Amino acid sequence: MDSPTRFTLTEHSPALWRVTFNNPPVNVVDSTMTTELDSLLTRAEESGTVAVIVFDSADPEFFLAHYDLSDGDELKWVLAHRDEIHPWSALLARLTSVPLATISSIRGRARGAGSELLLATDIRFGSREKAVVGQFEIGMSAIPGGGPATVLPSLMGRGRTFEMLYGGLDFDGELAERYGYVNRVFPDDELDGFVADFAARVASFDLQTIKDIKRFVNVATQRPVKEYKDQMDAFWAATTRPAQQHVARHLFEAGLQQRSDLERDLPQWVTRFQYRPGPDAQ
Amino acid sequence: MDSPTRFTLTEHSPALWRVTFNNPPVNVVDSTMTTELDSLLTRAEESGTVAVIVFDSADPEFFLAHYDLSDGDELKWVLAHRDEIHPWSALLARLTSVPLATISSIRGRARGAGSELLLATDIRFGSREKAVVGQFEIGMSAIPGGGPATVLPSLMGRGRTFEMLYGGLDFDGELAERYGYVNRVFPDDELDGFVADFAARVASFDLQTIKDIKRFVNVATQRPVKEYKDQMDAFWAATTRPAQQHVARHLFEAGLQQRSDLERDLPQWVTRFQYRPGPDAQ
Amino acid sequence: MDSPTRFTLTEHSPALWRVTFNNPPVNVVDSTMTTELDSLLTRAEESGTVAVIVFDSADPEFFLAHYDLSDGDELKWVLAHRDEIHPWSALLARLTSVPLATISSIRGRARGAGSELLLATDIRFGSREKAVVGQFEIGMSAIPGGGPATVLPSLMGRGRTFEMLYGGLDFDGELAERYGYVNRVFPDDELDGFVADFAARVASFDLQTIKDIKRFVNVATQRPVKEYKDQMDAFWAATTRPAQQHVARHLFEAGLQQRSDLERDLPQWVTRFQYRPGPDAQ
Repeated sequence: MDSPTRFTLTEHSPALWRVTFNNPPVNVVDSTMTTELDSLLTRAEESGTVAVIVFDSADPEFFLAHYDLSDGDELKWVLAHRDEIHPWSALLARLTSVPLATISSIRGRARGAGSELLLATDIRFGSREKAVVGQFEIGMSAIPGGGPATVLPSLMGRGRTFEMLYGGLDFDGELAERYGYVNRVFPDDELDGFVADFAARVASFDLQTIKDIKRFVNVATQRPVKEYKDQMDAFWAATTRPAQQHVARHLFEAGLQQRSDLERDLPQWVTRFQYRPGPDAQ
Repeated sequence: MDSPTRFTLTEHSPALWRVTFNNPPVNVVDSTMTTELDSLLTRAEESGTVAVIVFDSADPEFFLAHYDLSDGDELKWVLAHRDEIHPWSALLARLTSVPLATISSIRGRARGAGSELLLATDIRFGSREKAVVGQFEIGMSAIPGGGPATVLPSLMGRGRTFEMLYGGLDFDGELAERYGYVNRVFPDDELDGFVADFAARVASFDLQTIKDIKRFVNVATQRPVKEYKDQMDAFWAATTRPAQQHVARHLFEAGLQQRSDLERDLPQWVTRFQYRPGPDAQ
Repeated sequence: MDSPTRFTLTEHSPALWRVTFNNPPVNVVDSTMTTELDSLLTRAEESGTVAVIVFDSADPEFFLAHYDLSDGDELKWVLAHRDEIHPWSALLARLTSVPLATISSIRGRARGAGSELLLATDIRFGSREKAVVGQFEIGMSAIPGGGPATVLPSLMGRGRTFEMLYGGLDFDGELAERYGYVNRVFPDDELDGFVADFAARVASFDLQTIKDIKRFVNVATQRPVKEYKDQMDAFWAATTRPAQQHVARHLFEAGLQQRSDLERDLPQWVTRFQYRPGPDAQ
């Protein structure tokens, strides 16, 4: 594997790796990150020793902001490959089933694809004060593409899933824990220590047992890949509609994917740019 | 649609409607309310603009008391139409899948069919001090007919579902939130404002996206209609047994469906009238 | 049924029984307890009157410690009966579907098979200060055999299930309630009174209704028996591997199944004895 450009990899031991997202200015997810994460999982599986991977962020404000919406080539690729599963969906499905333990340690905003990434890990721990999770996509007139409609119900039930997906509002650490979006939150200065101890404990255990647990919990909980594909198709269909294009254009003009107030409070900003069809529509 | 008699409809905007239950003395659900709600959903779907419907109550003590148990003609109808799904079950199934967002704003008691109605909406917000939810039907020697055995596990898990259905006790707002029966509760004087803001936000978003979310969450969570039908059949079977008839007769004598202490504390009153078969049974 | 040797049975009424585990020194589960519980369920079903069974413990420190790991004959039996479901799995599956209400009242440690037993009952109440639940088996290099990978997701979601099974740590009463592992916890001096009142209330209700509720909630929540069998097979496969045998031998030397500090803090002790293959491995 070439050196990754979107994250750093720390090999604490042959059994315990840590991926630290680092893609300035706000840690967007993009096709390069997808490829690099896929290669990382291949290398981890082939190692025969990696039992635990922890995901955290080098940026205390942004765990992962959301998917990179500036890449015009990607829509062209999607339209030319309608029968294939999108690489981001494929990565999320692979992360869900990879035979080792995965843990997200959340500090800062994890919205959109950032939330989808952490939902595809096995366990989510967060900072009580600084973790922020959400699927803001309805504010851009698009269903989230990476499957939270499929994954969230098994974590926090049907009703709270609708609240998140219809409202597109941020959940802070306390609410995310109360709803089950994350396992638990800790005071910010205790998070790293708890996660390090927990991950080291798991990594000290028998790898075959970890694989058995992963497999059996997946038998009971994993959703069909088709649900991921259908939602991603619906997302890309949305990007071809005026409603989505209208909001996206205005958001970029106002600071999207820059280190901006807009990125910090994205769910509030989207309401300024809702599309109103009719003679006066921009 | 003729003017509804069991609720008032407020059209806040073309995208946002509010249904306020108003069926004195205690807001029972009956076959007329079922028909009126079904017509309302048809009108909302045909509008092409309604994105959100909020359900609340004109009576701060009773969101919806329970189903009208005084209508003798209904059992005759049921016995003559054994192969059909009961209209109340059909309405709940339709409400679960109708392609728009539905929100219950709960103040006062929502028991039996009242609880079933709010469980069929997408999101439940409630008053911390005044929301009361429950399925008291076991106290009348009958399984609830509207499917909470099917719906509650996806909200609060198998164990808490058994606690509610076996015990038939009220859950207050705080416990209902802790268990996930409702999304969240708010101080009573903040509930209306929160719900109004949330509903207006959702109603400002793209209707197609709301439809996509509803559809995909349902793919992951909706239960087969057969489970609703089987439970409703079991409910009506129960009403033909002496145990149910004994309790029902005594409850009506003591104030059922009147503005009574019995209606206020129904789960406590049912224990007075349990049927004991044998030579001395009434 | 001969008198049970692993628990006492109190028949509070024809409708309400209580099973109090009493198998010193630390209340391990064994094949005799399995047989005795199976006979108890048969007797309860045949009574035609038993509506509720409460499970509690005579030992305030140990609800049920875990499965008896000292019985060498059991592995021989398993190897000779590969196609059969293990009696413990069969008992858990039967307990899950037996047509009456089952309630665990948890004080002290319920780990491993003890946790599996309470997860197979319909409702779990516990002592806030003294309930301890957990699946420590990963610390012995084995997946839990009694199906928590299948049962826990429906109670507390996929993420918290992974946390318990990978970490193998104890959850105290407060965390077990927050996650949904147990329904609710109560101050220790209120637990017995609450459970007695709740159980008596349910036992006063119509038995047919209790049977209907059990059946319909199971339709919506019960997992295939195959998942139980596959996990038990994986457990026994683990016991033939050096990693498991290494930990087990050291644990027995240090106090397993005795009234020891090791049994009190088992999840901490297991980390001392992890197997490290290689030339220096013991």
